[in-house]
Parts: sequence; C-alpha cells; structure tokens
Amino acid sequence: MSAVIHAEISLFEQYSQVRQQSESIAAPLKPEDTVPQSMPDASPIKWHLAHTTWFYETFILRAQANYTEFHPDFQYLFNSYYNGVGEQYTRANRGLVTRPDLQQVMQYRQHVDMAMQKLLESSQDEGIQTLLVLGMNHEQQHQELMLTDLKHLLSHNPLHPSYVAEKPYATNRMLVEKRWLPIEGGLLDIGNNGDTEFIFDNEGPLHKHYLSDFEIASHCVSNAEYLEFIRAGGYQNPTYWLSDGWAFISENHITAPMYWQMNETGEWCYYTLNGLQKLDLQAPVTHISYYEADAFATFKAARLPTEQEWEVACRQMHMQSKVIGTNFAESGQYKPVDTNSPNNFLGNVWQWTQSSYSAYPGFKAWEGTVGEYNGKFMSGQMVLRGGSCATSASHIRSSYRNFFPPSARWQFSGIRLVK
Amino acid sequence: MSAVIHAEISLFEQYSQVRQQSESIAAPLKPEDTVPQSMPDASPIKWHLAHTTWFYETFILRAQANYTEFHPDFQYLFNSYYNGVGEQYTRANRGLVTRPDLQQVMQYRQHVDMAMQKLLESSQDEGIQTLLVLGMNHEQQHQELMLTDLKHLLSHNPLHPSYVAEKPYATNRMLVEKRWLPIEGGLLDIGNNGDTEFIFDNEGPLHKHYLSDFEIASHCVSNAEYLEFIRAGGYQNPTYWLSDGWAFISENHITAPMYWQMNETGEWCYYTLNGLQKLDLQAPVTHISYYEADAFATFKAARLPTEQEWEVACRQMHMQSKVIGTNFAESGQYKPVDTNSPNNFLGNVWQWTQSSYSAYPGFKAWEGTVGEYNGKFMSGQMVLRGGSCATSASHIRSSYRNFFPPSARWQFSGIRLVK
Amino acid sequence: MSAVIHAEISLFEQYSQVRQQSESIAAPLKPEDTVPQSMPDASPIKWHLAHTTWFYETFILRAQANYTEFHPDFQYLFNSYYNGVGEQYTRANRGLVTRPDLQQVMQYRQHVDMAMQKLLESSQDEGIQTLLVLGMNHEQQHQELMLTDLKHLLSHNPLHPSYVAEKPYATNRMLVEKRWLPIEGGLLDIGNNGDTEFIFDNEGPLHKHYLSDFEIASHCVSNAEYLEFIRAGGYQNPTYWLSDGWAFISENHITAPMYWQMNETGEWCYYTLNGLQKLDLQAPVTHISYYEADAFATFKAARLPTEQEWEVACRQMHMQSKVIGTNFAESGQYKPVDTNSPNNFLGNVWQWTQSSYSAYPGFKAWEGTVGEYNGKFMSGQMVLRGGSCATSASHIRSSYRNFFPPSARWQFSGIRLVK
Amino acid sequence: MSAVIHAEISLFEQYSQVRQQSESIAAPLKPEDTVPQSMPDASPIKWHLAHTTWFYETFILRAQANYTEFHPDFQYLFNSYYNGVGEQYTRANRGLVTRPDLQQVMQYRQHVDMAMQKLLESSQDEGIQTLLVLGMNHEQQHQELMLTDLKHLLSHNPLHPSYVAEKPYATNRMLVEKRWLPIEGGLLDIGNNGDTEFIFDNEGPLHKHYLSDFEIASHCVSNAEYLEFIRAGGYQNPTYWLSDGWAFISENHITAPMYWQMNETGEWCYYTLNGLQKLDLQAPVTHISYYEADAFATFKAARLPTEQEWEVACRQMHMQSKVIGTNFAESGQYKPVDTNSPNNFLGNVWQWTQSSYSAYPGFKAWEGTVGEYNGKFMSGQMVLRGGSCATSASHIRSSYRNFFPPSARWQFSGIRLVK
Repeated sequence: MSAVIHAEISLFEQYSQVRQQSESIAAPLKPEDTVPQSMPDASPIKWHLAHTTWFYETFILRAQANYTEFHPDFQYLFNSYYNGVGEQYTRANRGLVTRPDLQQVMQYRQHVDMAMQKLLESSQDEGIQTLLVLGMNHEQQHQELMLTDLKHLLSHNPLHPSYVAEKPYATNRMLVEKRWLPIEGGLLDIGNNGDTEFIFDNEGPLHKHYLSDFEIASHCVSNAEYLEFIRAGGYQNPTYWLSDGWAFISENHITAPMYWQMNETGEWCYYTLNGLQKLDLQAPVTHISYYEADAFATFKAARLPTEQEWEVACRQMHMQSKVIGTNFAESGQYKPVDTNSPNNFLGNVWQWTQSSYSAYPGFKAWEGTVGEYNGKFMSGQMVLRGGSCATSASHIRSSYRNFFPPSARWQFSGIRLVK
Repeated sequence: MSAVIHAEISLFEQYSQVRQQSESIAAPLKPEDTVPQSMPDASPIKWHLAHTTWFYETFILRAQANYTEFHPDFQYLFNSYYNGVGEQYTRANRGLVTRPDLQQVMQYRQHVDMAMQKLLESSQDEGIQTLLVLGMNHEQQHQELMLTDLKHLLSHNPLHPSYVAEKPYATNRMLVEKRWLPIEGGLLDIGNNGDTEFIFDNEGPLHKHYLSDFEIASHCVSNAEYLEFIRAGGYQNPTYWLSDGWAFISENHITAPMYWQMNETGEWCYYTLNGLQKLDLQAPVTHISYYEADAFATFKAARLPTEQEWEVACRQMHMQSKVIGTNFAESGQYKPVDTNSPNNFLGNVWQWTQSSYSAYPGFKAWEGTVGEYNGKFMSGQMVLRGGSCATSASHIRSSYRNFFPPSARWQFSGIRLVK
Repeated sequence: MSAVIHAEISLFEQYSQVRQQSESIAAPLKPEDTVPQSMPDASPIKWHLAHTTWFYETFILRAQANYTEFHPDFQYLFNSYYNGVGEQYTRANRGLVTRPDLQQVMQYRQHVDMAMQKLLESSQDEGIQTLLVLGMNHEQQHQELMLTDLKHLLSHNPLHPSYVAEKPYATNRMLVEKRWLPIEGGLLDIGNNGDTEFIFDNEGPLHKHYLSDFEIASHCVSNAEYLEFIRAGGYQNPTYWLSDGWAFISENHITAPMYWQMNETGEWCYYTLNGLQKLDLQAPVTHISYYEADAFATFKAARLPTEQEWEVACRQMHMQSKVIGTNFAESGQYKPVDTNSPNNFLGNVWQWTQSSYSAYPGFKAWEGTVGEYNGKFMSGQMVLRGGSCATSASHIRSSYRNFFPPSARWQFSGIRLVK
Repeated sequence: MSAVIHAEISLFEQYSQVRQQSESIAAPLKPEDTVPQSMPDASPIKWHLAHTTWFYETFILRAQANYTEFHPDFQYLFNSYYNGVGEQYTRANRGLVTRPDLQQVMQYRQHVDMAMQKLLESSQDEGIQTLLVLGMNHEQQHQELMLTDLKHLLSHNPLHPSYVAEKPYATNRMLVEKRWLPIEGGLLDIGNNGDTEFIFDNEGPLHKHYLSDFEIASHCVSNAEYLEFIRAGGYQNPTYWLSDGWAFISENHITAPMYWQMNETGEWCYYTLNGLQKLDLQAPVTHISYYEADAFATFKAARLPTEQEWEVACRQMHMQSKVIGTNFAESGQYKPVDTNSPNNFLGNVWQWTQSSYSAYPGFKAWEGTVGEYNGKFMSGQMVLRGGSCATSASHIRSSYRNFFPPSARWQFSGIRLVK
C-alpha cells in the first residue's frame, strides 16, 4: 500500500477528521448504548472506539522508543484478530467488558491522538505514514460497522428506539424506469494497482480477466419488487433457493428481509435507525442475505453479477474510477434512499455478487502482522460491491471489495441483477 | 402470607428502606456496568432495578383506579416470568435492552415510589399491605442477585475490576476446631406457619417429619479443606462423583470452584467483588455446584444433610428461629468471612442440602398470579439453606428455602457435612 | 444383596431362563434391526445382548483363574458406565459399532453361558451366587429397555413396522368406574430389607416415614381422560405447567404423548410394537414425561403421589408385597391394556411420583464396583413405581424404584392421581 | 447432456455392469454394516443401494404407463434432495430406518432392473437413454461415497475392522523426485461441451478463461512431506491458517489428517479399509480438509491451484482428455498408492483447488427436476479435481468437478501445489 496524502491538508488533519467522525457517530448515544454485543459478529460501540485507537497504538506508537502505553492490558483486550500481536480476548464476550467505561475509552483515544500528533510533527517516516493511512481506512471501515452493529443492537429493543430523529428528504423523488444496460466484454483489466490512491491489498494486483458480453440492471431491486417475490410465495418454494439457502431460511424461520415486520393492520414496516417506519417501496431492498439475493434472481430468471462484471459495468457507467453515492451524511436518512438516480452503482446499498471472496491472481498480502488484515478471510465469504449509505465516501470506488458470509444480513446489502 | 408490620416504623418507611438499599447497591456502578447480562440465568443491574419496581406497579398500583403507568411497554418489558400477567421479553436478551437507560429507570422507580406513598397514606387495605410486604421481600431477594450477578459479570473482565475497595477485617481471626454436633431425631415439626413474621409460601405448612439421630458439622467446609480435595485429585476421580456431576465437570472442564485461578507463581487466587485476591484458607469454600458439594462429601466419607436435618440442627443450635449471621454490610467484606464462629448455621454461605426442591405436604401456592412465585419451580432444583454474606438479614431464618439447579455456581454456596 | 434361590429349580436353570428370555425378545428381529441407536439414552438390541453378557463375564468370570475371555476388547467395548472397570466406549456412538455382528454376539453369549455352567457346577461360592442373581436382575432390567428402545427406534420408520403381529384381547373389556381410595397415614415403614427375595440396594434400608392421610385413584389415567386435557388446550396453557415443563414442551414442540399422531381424517393414532393403531381410549395413557403427568394433575386440581404414598397404598390395596400385573407375555398385547382391573397398582404402566430419586435414610451402596449400579444416579431423576407391561414379572413389587429424568417419554410411563 | 453409448456393448449391458459394481462393493459386508449412518453427511450402504435404484424408478420408470412401483412409500423414503419429486425423509435419520432390510432392498433393485430391461428392449426413446446414462453416472458417484462412507463408519469401531483383506503391492515402488512443471497461460478454453462423452451439466459450457503462466508440482504432497508440517508445529501456528481454518481445527481439536493416530510406541498409523496400518510415507497425504491443504501450501510458501490452472495443467501433461489413474480395482489397495508415477494428475487422490464451486459463464442446469443435481449446491463448497483411488474410472477426466465444503475430510482428498 502507499500512503497517499491529500496535498491540501496535512496528514494529521486528515487523521483528526477521521477520529472526529467516529466520535460524531457515538455522540447521540448514552453510555448504556455503547456496551452490549447483540451477536458474536457485531461489536459494542465502545469496543469500536477503543479498537480503532488500538490499531494506531499497536502498529505505529509501540514501535516508538518514547511512547508510554495508556494501559498495559489494552494490547490484549482490544486486539480483534491479529495473531501476530498475541492472544485475543474472546470475541463473543466483548459485550461483557464494562470497564474501561466510555469516558476512559475517550481518554484512551485522546492519549493516542496526542501521541500521534507529537509523532507526526517530528517524523517524516514513510512507513509510519503508510500505516497511518491504513489505520485511517481501518477506522472508516469500523465507522460503517458502528452503524450496522448499533442498528442490530437497537432492533432487539421492543421500544424501537431512534438513534437520531429523521430529517425530511431533501429532493423530490421520481421513479425512473429500470433498464438493462448492455456491457461489452473482452479481455479486460480488473483490480487496482493503487497508483493514485490508497487501496486495500485485496484490490490488487491489476490483472487480465476475460468476460463475455452481458446486460446489467440500471437500478438495484426495490422494496416493491422484493415484495412481489414475498407475495408470490418465494420464501415457501424451494425451487428458487440454493440448497444451503433453503436450509438457512428454514432453520431460522426467515420469511422477509431482516428488520421487516408486519404491523397489526397487515402493513409491512421496518426498523430503521430513525425508528420503526412504514416500508418505503421505492427504496432499494436491503438487509438480505446472499441466499435471498440469489433466490430473488432465480425467481426473476436472472442472476447476480460476478464481481468482475460488476466492476466493469460500474467503470463503464461512471466513466471514472470514483463516484460517491448517497450516504447518511448527505441524505440525512439513516437508510438507503430511493432508486431514481439512473445508473448509480455506488453508495446506496452493497450489492451481492456471485463471486466468492478469494485472492486475485498474483495477490500478495501486506508484509508483517497487518498482512492478517484481508488474506486470512478468503474462505466462506461472498464479495459485495458498491458501498452503502453507511460507507465512508472515500471507500466508495469501483475496485473496492467488501465480503461477508452468505448468511450475513445486518449490513446494508441489496441486489443488482444481470442477464 | 400475612402482612407483618414492624410496630415501630410505618410500612412506607420500611418500603423506603428496602428501595434505598437497592439503590445503594447500584450506587458505586457506572451506567455501563448496569447493562450487560453475562449468562441467561443472571440479569443486568438495570433490569433488577426496573423489575423490582414493576412488581409493585403490576400487583398493587395497576389495580388502583387513578394510577397512571410510567410507560405502556414496561408491563411487558420488565415481567420476569409471570404468565398470568402476560407474555415476557426473551429472558436471554435482557442485556440487549439499553433503553430505558439507567437514569430513566431511576425515574421509573421514583414514579412508582410516589404512587406507593400516596396509596399508603390513603389506604389501610390489608390486601395491599400483604402484597407490599411480598414486594419488599421480593426486592430483597433481588438485592442478593444483584450482587451475585454483578460478580459474575465483572469476573469476565480481564482487568479484574473491584466493585468497591476492601475494608480491613474488623476482628482478629481465630481458628476454632470443627466438631461433630449430635442431633436427636424423632417425629419433628418442619416448616413455618408464619404466625409471627413474613414467610414464603414454600416454607409451609408446618408438618411432621420423622428423622433418625445424626451428627452435623459445627462449621462449613473451609477453602483449606477443599484444597485437600483438589490436591488429592478429586476432580480427576469419577468414583467421588454423581454420574451427572462427572458429566458436568468433564463437559465444562471444571477443576476448581468458580472464580478460582492459579497465578503465575502457582498460588491459588480468586476473584471477589474487591478484585482478585489470594485465597483465604480459613474462609468457607463457596461458588461450588451441588455436584462438587456431593463429591467432596463422598471424598470425606460423609454426606450432605437433608433440608429437614439442616433445619432441625439449626433450630437446636441457635435455640431460636432467627439468628442473623455476618453479611456484607456488617463485615465490610464482599465475601464470606472465616469459619471461626462456632455452630453458626446462618448467614455466611448457603449450604447445599441433598433435598430436591419440592412441595411440603399440604403445600398451597398463594392465590392469583403471585402464586407463580415459587411453586412452578419445583423440579430440577436442590434446596440450599442458611443464607449467605449477600443475603438480606431479614431473610436469614431456619425455615427459609433457597433453591438452584445442581449446576449453579454463581451464588455464595458452600458445604456443611453430616454423618 | 442376598442371593435368593428358588428352591424348586437350580440357579443355573434360572439363569438359563433369563438368558433365553433376552434371546426370545430378539428373535423376531432382522440383524439390521439390532444395530442402530435412535438416541443417546437408548441402546441397540445387539449392544443389550452383549452388555448383559459382559456383566457376568466382568463381575464373575474374570475373577476365575481358568477363564479365557472371548475377545480382549469387549471389556472396554461393552462396559456401560462402570468407572471401576475402566474407560468406556462413547455411549452416543453405540449404534456405529457394526462388528461384532449379531451372530458373533450370540457366540459371545454362548461362550459365557458355557463358562457359567461350568463354574456353577463346580462352585458353591455364595459371593458368586449373589453376583449371579444381581446379573440376572440386571439382564431383566435390560429386557424392558430392549423393548422400549426398539419401539423408539422403529417409530422413526415411516413404514410403521410391526415388531410382532397383534393377538386379539383375551378378555371382554369392561369399564369400571374410577374411585378415590382413602389411605390412612401415620408413622409407617418404607422400603425393603430384602429378607426373603432379591432387592436392589436403593430399595433399602427399611425405615420410618411419616405420612398424613390421603386419597389415591383406583385406576391410572386413561387415554380418554388425557384427551380431555389435550382438547381443553392443556398443552397451550402455561398455568398448568412447571416452569421447566413449559420450556420442555415449547422447545420440543410437544402437543401430545410420544408416539401419538393424528391421521388424515383427524383421528388420533399411536405407534405401537404392533404397528400404527387407533388410540385405545380405555387403555392408560403412557409415554408421557413427568412434566406432562404433573400438568395433567394440576389440570385436574389433583397431584401426583410421593413415592412413599404410592408404596403404602400399593401395599394396602394388594395386602401383599408382590402382585404381578399384566405384561406382554400374558396379554399378547405389546402395549398397556385397559384400566378395568380395579385397584391394580402393579404391572401396566410405570407411575410417575412427585419424589426425586434420592438415597433412603441410611442407604449404603453395594460394596465394590457394582456399587455404581444405582447410587451415582441419585440426581436429576424422578421415581416411577409399579412396573409396566414390558417389565419382567419378578421386578414387579411394591418397593421397586424405577427412575428417569423428568423429560423421559420412551418408557411405558403413566399417571395415578392423589388428592 | 447426451446419451453416449459405447458401440460395442448394449446400453442395458452397460447398465447391468454399473448395477453389478454397486453390489460387488456391498458383497463383503454383513447386513449389520449396511445400516448405520456415522454422520449426517454420510449415508448407510443400504440407503445407497436403494437410492441409486430409486433414481431410475423416479425419473424413468414412473413415467411409463405400465410400471408398477415396488413399494408406495419408497418414493418418499429414498428421495435424497429432489424437491421437485416431493418431501424427503430427514437426512440425518437415514441410519434409523432398519426396514426395508438389506434383502428387501436387493429385491427392490431386482424389481427395477427387470423393469429397466423390459423397457430398454422395447424403447429407443432418446430421452430415456439420456436419463439412463445420467442414472448410471449417478450410481457411479454413489459407489465412491459407499466406500468413503463405509470407511468413516468402520473407523468408529475400536476393533479396527477390515473391509477386505489387503493384497500385496503389484509393483516395486520407486520414489521419483518432485519437479515444478511450467505451464503456459493465455486465453484458454475451460470446460467441456460433452460432444463425445457424458458430462455433468456443471462441466460446461466450454468457455474462455485467461491465465498467467504458472508452475505446478509433478506430484501430490506425500505423507512424508505432510509429516514435516506436523512436526514443525503446523497445527499449532495460526499464521499458516485461514481464519475459518484455525477456528475449525481449534474447535474440533484437529492435529493430524483424519484417520491418523499415534500408537503406543509413538509411530503414526492410519485406519484404512484394510484395517489399521503403519503410515505409508511415500503415499500421498489424504483425508484432509481444504483448510489443511491451504495451511500446508502457506507453510511451503506456495499455494493451491485454481480449478482452471489444474485443468489446463492436466490436459497439457496428459496430452489427452481422459487418462485413468490407479484405483481400488487396479491396485488391490484400498488406499491411494505411492506417488512415483510422474505427472500423474488423475486417479489417486482428489486435489483441493482454491476455487469455490460456482457456475461457469453461461451455465444452464438440466431441464426439469434433474436440474437440482448440481446447480443448487453452488455455494459454500470448494472444487476438487482429479479423481481418487475410489472413483469410477469413467469419471476420471480433466473437466470433472467434484465439490465439498472446506471442512470435509472423509473423501480421499489431497494436495497439489502451485507457485
């Protein structure tokens, strides 16, 4: 990876903005909200705030001669999964660690921020800058998880609490008709060498990949379209489903996307970070598993794109490698917005691809312990592309590879069809 | 049950003292500490504070014409297990309910306290007084659980936090030798008709029970004695164990009482509410399952008492039906103290009996929904007697029947032998 | 225990009859039927045939100087749970051991029978005779399990196979009205010293127990009566159930006794060892858990007897200590027969008592490894009394204590009420 | 698919040979061996014999006007997973179905064989012939599973039974040194259009795929090489492992390939279908999961091939599309033989690839219910290539795609490295 520095503002200022953003996400919360862990895959807000701090401390500050650690046990306590750093506190028990409390975690953040400031003022070391940029991207990834983990937690509360009050839509909504966009295949470049910006190791190296021509939908699947699938008995008919998918929905009694519920008058509602709301039919369907995305595609006699198809289509549609879609900060909506922006591949919901998450040809993990970042997760997961309403804008690019197990539903995941 | 009123202070004053005691237990805690649930059998502190309040609201205030409920969803949210009141929020998820936050729960308490005050000032209704006394005893039972649940939660924290700082022992410690106390059997009265004080329905009715003569230990088993069992390979030898007990310790890899751990220099320590400490060899062993108590007795070629034997011995030794032992408030120690008070049956550790928890002959559960209090738990549990260092003083009496599954270890449970 | 010998026939002849009875039970089966294990609590027929043989080999023959074992690995392979003998093959995997095949197991039986014959011809050792009588009683207990385990296995087969074809009822059936039999209490003798016959260690010692007067039902509860409970919504109403029982039926989706199913025309049928049949309304309900028995009693505003009440009532009703009820061999019916024999406490269905299985006062387990027979199971189980249609006649006596966990349903267990 | 008929012998003769082969595999077994199911993923031999018969009956014979089914319940009982045919008997309970017994299953086979003979004598219907060839290939796949499922079952027996006695090696063994074979990449054809032989739907369509140059090992990894990994602490060092893999071996306490065990003198042995044997160091390692294959590759600073790399290398090395390796019938060894045949890609052990099992571009599942054969399993599984010692010779070809979850170990799976 390379440490790409925005010329206009200093690296420390960029760092400070990222740090501030995490704290802004936590700001509307009570200390109580930051403690529990609603499932092993999710983490407490308090843990996210500490772990993102631990990352700089562990990979940058501990290597400095004069750094004094904040607490001797935090190296162990806030390690997520880096075996190279040492053993880790049991992941599934993160919600049982009430101390340090939120205030002490904020002091830990301040302690590390001050040490980082001092270090950056005195050092021009490129290795440090590279790790710093990685740490910032790491923290931005956790910012998305803070929102999705929080939503998962709060959804268990029968009072349906709002994270923040809703703002009205800024624009008039206008339904644009879905079209099939023809994409030309051939022997094409896939991936990203990261010459001009930060990329994760799993986005490279740039390599050739052969694709046939295909057609891809101009819009993601809407809640209205998904409702047709439900009403047609899609969740009751095994012929639409992968074998694992049918087992998954049967064992878990799943009959609708996560967070959907029917109210007493038979209307579909869904829990959002703005509280329980009536289903927005124009908005893209989200919080579905890969299995549901695949079953929907089969129901529609279509299929999901491969990640290479998606990437090529995204590049062709946007004519550029980086386009920022809508997100929480922009829309004021803590949910994906409607699907009326034509050809928008980026930034509303993550889109499941039919590609398993694996190494690109010639893939090399980063050197050292940070090499555990991506490579060791290359089994059992599917690639999602595009970025969601909760994704940091600087992570929204055509080559970005998100990955989750096919059963994961708590991310803002949706569907774009191919045929 | 009867509403027994201490003549010297008003019922509302008694109520206020009980309420205050719950809040004192929570006082040293941060809001963060009051949220998580460390296992399905334990509950969050915040939940205990709300549920004990819910009890008065549900069984007393909701029956009053002019009472305004604090929140329409709390009847559901803070119901523990009363099917007669309605459905209950999933017990295992109590730790995921971050809202109401602690402050709102304290407002809920205040709301109910004010309504109770108003009601008691205007009403002399005996039914209300009876339910009030039950509610107070109920809250006192939860005060013990607050301490044991909190200990269980904090024990998961690798920082070994202290609930409160330790005070020094008030007295010199002096080991008194253990003796076997001979107890005369015969056709004896067991149980309590509750003529002079509040009793739970499961303590009655008074009934005849035939006992042979027996001998009972003057002291509970100490940590030093239990250590002998460990060092003699007690946890590795199936011949000491009940079949279920051997399966239990094998599946759970149990080789010592709960909260015990060996430090790097090979010394036994244990986690206490005052933090991690060296094992106090003179103190009674505690945090053991019924299976461990039974195995220890077999190792010693002795046995555990039946609950009737225990009750008769306790009455004979104390020559009175109510003796208060040591407890947290008295000792300043948040753990059982040493075993040098001879013949002390009450108030240091709960003592496992070999009796399954079942109905006394002629048992009648209370009328109405409060009848779910005790009777429906009469399967799969063992009786413990005596009260612990965490038990409210007014619950420490010879007829009191505590009960837990044989695998339970998070209460202050210990061993008294019989032969 | 004492080795009580029927004067009229030799001990070896008695032994041969017991051995023959096990083989008769297996005779109608194919080798295939003798292999699988339908749940960890049940065992394969082939295993029962081998393990009952192992018992004599292990506790009698291995102590003889000139005995040659049949196979060096069988001591390990067919040990059920005797830690004193050594480690055991994983219980839950017994159904995976296809070899020795059935024929080899029969050869093993023959090998041991011949050695036993030789030994008994040459020895009058009383210790051997005592262990032999124990082994015979042990084998008879397994004969009942062979039938109940086989029924459990075959019930998984959607073809509803018959173990044997049904014979018609020998007698006219005549419904006799149920009455409440008044039983006088007092300070009574419970248990059995075994002066005149074989008893298990858990039946003694004879001891005093105080009982109040009570009334007990003259008949066990019939299928017709139990159907009323079902039709009244008994399985949907938590107020009838113990807390553990409600959890048990909810988690396991239980809405009727084991083996019951409704056919396409809405009639209740049940699987029997004679195949699938229409429910016999006059026959006693069976294959119910303790939880169901207790809930039914609560529904009827009655209760289950304690084991002492049951024993006293049985003795008073029969005026003798041993009365043989109906069983498979007599009735030609592989299910409990109707309830029209008044006051019949013995031999149709086992009757759940409200007593946990625990040691009688002064209980001493047998010396040596056979002491693991009963004592180590004295936790987590409930006592059943009376013997069932599948019980060996010589095990049907008033002092006999059967025991199973409260969730067990695959035995022929039923209900007798008390008030 | 196309029904390709070997000109020299009739289709019915080919069918008869396939049918006979299944029965030959079962011939050395006792009825007892054919009943149990050692894990949900494996099936009883008796079930395999019935299910392969069911396939012809269901997809061919039931469509014939004059066919009389053997038993009305078998359509349900022996359906594996075809939702289009109807509901299925619970997979995990297949080992509990003792009836039909083995003899009746053989009669069922005969019944279907006779009906097939009659049908083929009278019909030249190409649709029937196509389904017949599919049924034969289906049965051959089950023949491999019969051997691997049987091995898994028998391995649970502490007597280590032999399926058949071992024959001596036919040839002298000579270790040939491993080389790296350079393979030229480019835009290459992958897959098989099946113009000249039967192929499964998942092998097609033929499509272009771009590959870089690579080097592939001339031999599969031997037991000797794998032992180095074990001795170097490979199972104790998380840095070699995928995150899922580390969790898998930790939770299952895996420290060596399946079936390996150390004897009392510290030598490695393994259970084979010829009984327990000393480890053959020259033979290829087998019975490893994908996770172990991947960890070994990481340990060797190499990687696993993609399935496309493997296919291209196999074609280049053999200069032909179909080469038969060693197998049980040829070698007389019921295990993979040594690795001294240079460049042998086919027929000894299945070789894990790093490719997830997914649809080729343009994949179309077969029409109708047989379309459930392959497509619905395209999630959560990895592709294996090459065929094993237990694979039917006619299934050993460069385009054949086997697939199993990454945790599967009971197949004859091994490792070929790439760099």
